[in-house]
Amino acid sequence: MVGFWWSAFPGLPERVPWRPGHSLTLRAFYERALSLFPGVEIVYRTSRGVERYTFSRAAERMKALAAALEALGVGRLDPVATLDWNTHWHYEAYLAVPMMGAVLHPVNIRLAPSEIAYIMGQAGDRVAIVHRDFLPLIEAVAPHLDQLRAVVVVDAESHPDRLAGRPVYNYEDLVREHRGGYEWPELDENQPAAMGYTSGTTGLPKGAYHSHRMIVLHVMSAALHLATASPWFRISSGDTILHIVPMFHVYSWGLPYLATLVGMRQVFPNKLDPGVLLRLIDEEQVTLTAGVPTILYMLLSHPDSERYDLSRLTFINGGSALPRGLAEQATRRGIRVIVGYGMTETAPVLTLALPHAGLSDAGERWLDYALRTGWPVPLVEVRVVDEDMNPVPRDGKTMGEVVVRAPWVTPEYYMDPEKTEKAWRGGWFHTGDIAVWHPDGSIEIVDREKDIIKSGGEWISSTRLEDAISRHPCVAEVAVVAAYHPKWQERPVAAIVPKPGCKDEPTTEEIRRYLMENYVEKGAIPKWWLPDKVVLVRELPRTSVGKIDKKKLRAQLRSILVEELQGSTGSTLQPIGS
Amino acid sequence: MVGFWWSAFPGLPERVPWRPGHSLTLRAFYERALSLFPGVEIVYRTSRGVERYTFSRAAERMKALAAALEALGVGRLDPVATLDWNTHWHYEAYLAVPMMGAVLHPVNIRLAPSEIAYIMGQAGDRVAIVHRDFLPLIEAVAPHLDQLRAVVVVDAESHPDRLAGRPVYNYEDLVREHRGGYEWPELDENQPAAMGYTSGTTGLPKGAYHSHRMIVLHVMSAALHLATASPWFRISSGDTILHIVPMFHVYSWGLPYLATLVGMRQVFPNKLDPGVLLRLIDEEQVTLTAGVPTILYMLLSHPDSERYDLSRLTFINGGSALPRGLAEQATRRGIRVIVGYGMTETAPVLTLALPHAGLSDAGERWLDYALRTGWPVPLVEVRVVDEDMNPVPRDGKTMGEVVVRAPWVTPEYYMDPEKTEKAWRGGWFHTGDIAVWHPDGSIEIVDREKDIIKSGGEWISSTRLEDAISRHPCVAEVAVVAAYHPKWQERPVAAIVPKPGCKDEPTTEEIRRYLMENYVEKGAIPKWWLPDKVVLVRELPRTSVGKIDKKKLRAQLRSILVEELQGSTGSTLQPIGS
Repeated sequence: MVGFWWSAFPGLPERVPWRPGHSLTLRAFYERALSLFPGVEIVYRTSRGVERYTFSRAAERMKALAAALEALGVGRLDPVATLDWNTHWHYEAYLAVPMMGAVLHPVNIRLAPSEIAYIMGQAGDRVAIVHRDFLPLIEAVAPHLDQLRAVVVVDAESHPDRLAGRPVYNYEDLVREHRGGYEWPELDENQPAAMGYTSGTTGLPKGAYHSHRMIVLHVMSAALHLATASPWFRISSGDTILHIVPMFHVYSWGLPYLATLVGMRQVFPNKLDPGVLLRLIDEEQVTLTAGVPTILYMLLSHPDSERYDLSRLTFINGGSALPRGLAEQATRRGIRVIVGYGMTETAPVLTLALPHAGLSDAGERWLDYALRTGWPVPLVEVRVVDEDMNPVPRDGKTMGEVVVRAPWVTPEYYMDPEKTEKAWRGGWFHTGDIAVWHPDGSIEIVDREKDIIKSGGEWISSTRLEDAISRHPCVAEVAVVAAYHPKWQERPVAAIVPKPGCKDEPTTEEIRRYLMENYVEKGAIPKWWLPDKVVLVRELPRTSVGKIDKKKLRAQLRSILVEELQGSTGSTLQPIGS
Repeated sequence: MVGFWWSAFPGLPERVPWRPGHSLTLRAFYERALSLFPGVEIVYRTSRGVERYTFSRAAERMKALAAALEALGVGRLDPVATLDWNTHWHYEAYLAVPMMGAVLHPVNIRLAPSEIAYIMGQAGDRVAIVHRDFLPLIEAVAPHLDQLRAVVVVDAESHPDRLAGRPVYNYEDLVREHRGGYEWPELDENQPAAMGYTSGTTGLPKGAYHSHRMIVLHVMSAALHLATASPWFRISSGDTILHIVPMFHVYSWGLPYLATLVGMRQVFPNKLDPGVLLRLIDEEQVTLTAGVPTILYMLLSHPDSERYDLSRLTFINGGSALPRGLAEQATRRGIRVIVGYGMTETAPVLTLALPHAGLSDAGERWLDYALRTGWPVPLVEVRVVDEDMNPVPRDGKTMGEVVVRAPWVTPEYYMDPEKTEKAWRGGWFHTGDIAVWHPDGSIEIVDREKDIIKSGGEWISSTRLEDAISRHPCVAEVAVVAAYHPKWQERPVAAIVPKPGCKDEPTTEEIRRYLMENYVEKGAIPKWWLPDKVVLVRELPRTSVGKIDKKKLRAQLRSILVEELQGSTGSTLQPIGS
């Protein structure tokens, strides 16, 4: 027997020593796919048509791309811009650029050229990988980018030799020339891997960046939640994913990485065309896709939509709240819908609205749960707080701001300490979203902080009103914004795109009657939330990522409304609480 | 337009700055369960019978336990020993001890008291949480543990006030006294969270330890693989797990943590009793469990087995290879079997044998894939290498040692730099297991390095021979070990427990005939692998965790074999390659 050997007891170390293989880098996903799923098919559309290859072939090309970028002078931590649609070239860059130690910077090509020049200038992009559709764009901005050394063009049969003084190379030539021999370096998990800019409805775009570790954890967590949270839904290596979320938008919500990790078959549709997407969904037997509500609307309202079988599909909605009317329409086509929530700063996923086993009625009441903003995915802590950072009651009614902590929240706005400090006040990241907290732990966003309507000191949720109005049979699209009011400060006004040829025209009176009958009298919304006015419009203004641009809408409506509302006080406005 | 603003370009930081919420600690699993699954049921058996509570109640008790341990003097990084069966008390300690910043140390109560004294002495355990069944054991070893301050007893109506000079408390009294008010501290993810000792078939037990980060990543990866790798199997919040893997054995393979993360209903059976386990599986509608082959054998061969419905169950096998005969028997009862592989040093999971979508025939040929050692789970890199660390061909034939890298491999053997250096030579952790590597990326362990039979410079896999012999209709159990041979150095000898009353007694001649007809003539094993001798035995020696103790068996067989083999040379031995 022993006993006193340990009297000078050393104890365990404060921190576990590091060993090879302990780091979390994107290469782990690449190696997993090579080890388990080398033969999984990747389908992609080019200007020549639909083609396909395997992951192991893509992996060889990723090595060649890394070697080529290195030869073009891309070093550790150097940003590489992509200006591309959803292509297999983009996918190869998604993995190769971070794995070689450089920084992937997908540029939102929907922004104005001046914003793109600002973003690419601030990021300091060294090389730009550019779809031929954006050669004119890069030509316009390149003179302002003194860090840019070369342009690599994809999906092009021919191209100019130089653009704004920079050499131009064809991606396929580079990959052919640099075949074989590249060795991926060992990387620190905490080095930046990718960056993106918020679309910036207010002020200049803000840069966010994420390390390898952040992306790895984000993707594992989202995959784990999608796979395990609900007994009624799952993802697996048996899925085929169609990449609809633009790859220039928050790393395509991490889905290309997620598909690599899980071993899904992937379909890259190039430039989004609803007719092509419908055909790909049917012919390639797509089981999973994701996007903003607009794209779902386009898929369902396309003239040929009914010709295609969409019944295998699950659609993960993000970017904006999914209107119930649209969700029901999708459900009737056999599409399962799930809502996700996040933002550029959070890489992006924070919550997913997948009902878990504890909600025993969720099998039947899928939409009631799936239209929530959702429950936090693993490792995310979410709180809904009042202005003093105290959690609001979990009563499904009290509104507060969503604040979060997660291992993948961007540490700062790039080169903007002031906005960083504001976002991180109190040790939590402030999302700027207003939500209620349900007793079952889910949150439900009711508005952006800047879109909420502050009427007489109380809050009116523009998105809840939109959701209700969207179910009127003659409403195609709706946006509710605040208009200035001399007595109540702000009152809600609805801009509506009417359905053509529909008999109950959605006028102010008709919408107020409809809401009164279906919502107010049933206690679903308070009477004082009724919009003061409906304005019929041909279309709604949108941001570069397809969200309704409420800032622009408010500006457009301002002039016609001020006068009317000032004259209407006594008649249509209801005192609060009535 | 902009342009030259960034000529003094700062670039991205080398490492992403740290923010609150970026750390990976076990508290994330606890918070997730509280947020999503507070009402999930936990079923547990005590000496009073089967009882149940919810996770949120367990969480309150975890806080009280942490407060109580703090009051007993447990500080940061102090090890807390558990000597307990699979109980809800053990589960509470599994989470509370690491979350308070202390180190969980589950002690293998199957070891000899002298080994337990050695282990607990080296670990420096401050408090021991002890099931009443082990009060005599702790009384015997406590005099040798100068760090031990107190004993906390569970599942006991009464207990002595003191044991070997240390105060003894009842767990339930402590939890009642310390209710409310405890706040979990913020922890560094790299601080040690738990430790365990290898069962040590050679020499003294070796200590391994794991940080919060390691356990979190291990559990997320294993869950992700179980959930997504196969289209034919999944885990979800709809599962009910029965904890059969002893909680003193490698953190119960991480399954209590995994169940917390995924939101599974959990069943803690206390001391393992096959009759009770069968009843719990049926009555509690258990869908998932795990264990060594011996426990599966006990469940299937129990006299009352057929009375219970086992058809909802998936059994994850680990610890030893699952013999095909046993797997087929389980399959006939409607049990799905999956094989996992790992070790104490790796927390433990490295691979799981879940066929993925790319193996299109896996739906029908489940067992052919599920009996492999498996494919690496996410973030694990596995190689099968020769003695110079070169990967062997992926041909399903060439044997080599399994070496691994993963973010959760223990960085060192506690207080043993020499063994640490040997294990980590060449920057890879050496498992000491011999495997072949299949073209599909899966590995198949054919032996422990120390169990492989080295005959004339070539290797014979003892486990492959065991697998073949186990399918003989009159063989209940079998172990194949090396016996010394003057010409070939080693030759295989089989120790067999025969099935009682079976007519074809598995003698040397019968087994050689059986193998010749069913394996050698079909090309499944080479002729020179045929065992030189069969020894019929009443039972096989086992280690403390239920594995067959080949070291002891070799010793037992040595005396009777040397003479026989020396006399048998010309007759039964076949030249290599014949």
